[in-house]
Amino acid sequence: MTGDFARTPEPPYWAVIFTSRRTAGEDGYGAMAEEMARLAAEQPGYLGLESARAESGLGITVSYWANESDARAWKQVARHLEAQRFGRVRWYEAYEVRVARVERAYGWTRPAARDAT
Amino acid sequence: MTGDFARTPEPPYWAVIFTSRRTAGEDGYGAMAEEMARLAAEQPGYLGLESARAESGLGITVSYWANESDARAWKQVARHLEAQRFGRVRWYEAYEVRVARVERAYGWTRPAARDAT
Repeated sequence: MTGDFARTPEPPYWAVIFTSRRTAGEDGYGAMAEEMARLAAEQPGYLGLESARAESGLGITVSYWANESDARAWKQVARHLEAQRFGRVRWYEAYEVRVARVERAYGWTRPAARDAT
Repeated sequence: MTGDFARTPEPPYWAVIFTSRRTAGEDGYGAMAEEMARLAAEQPGYLGLESARAESGLGITVSYWANESDARAWKQVARHLEAQRFGRVRWYEAYEVRVARVERAYGWTRPAARDAT
């Protein structure tokens, strides 16, 4: 699911930046995170997902959406609402959500790595 | 430097989402990353920085800026340009930069954690 770059189109599109600090312990978190990544990918306007968590416990997940209404709709999907409730009970010490419109994007790939793919 | 939430103001403000995959080996990366975080914090319009890297090697660093011109100016700071060049030579297999305008933001903190701070 995660561990790789999202293949997003030319801007504009939308990004939901979800920064979180985990509680100690697994308690079903990994399974939920995988399910949510799969479910997000089925939603209208989904463009991709990138996720990383440091050993310190701080994690950043960015999901990309074709437009703001698609990002809002994902927040309201029933199973996702349930995961959000579980998150507050079990998995997170704190989180911050920032909804942003991506205006510009550019990237770079090492030539050797580019040849290898 | 990293490992914690950025304390950003009410939107709108700007986010630069830097997603990267590291090469193997340290090769001065940690020292550069710390220097860049300190240097960014001295720039006009800097609002904060959040960073996480997974064991897989994918990392996400989001820097927050008061406006787009501040974000652009940071990209052009001489020592930062040098770090970008070193990054392409040494530290990164690939990266993607997305510049976005944050339109909405909300957060949550566990009540016990809130009391403890």
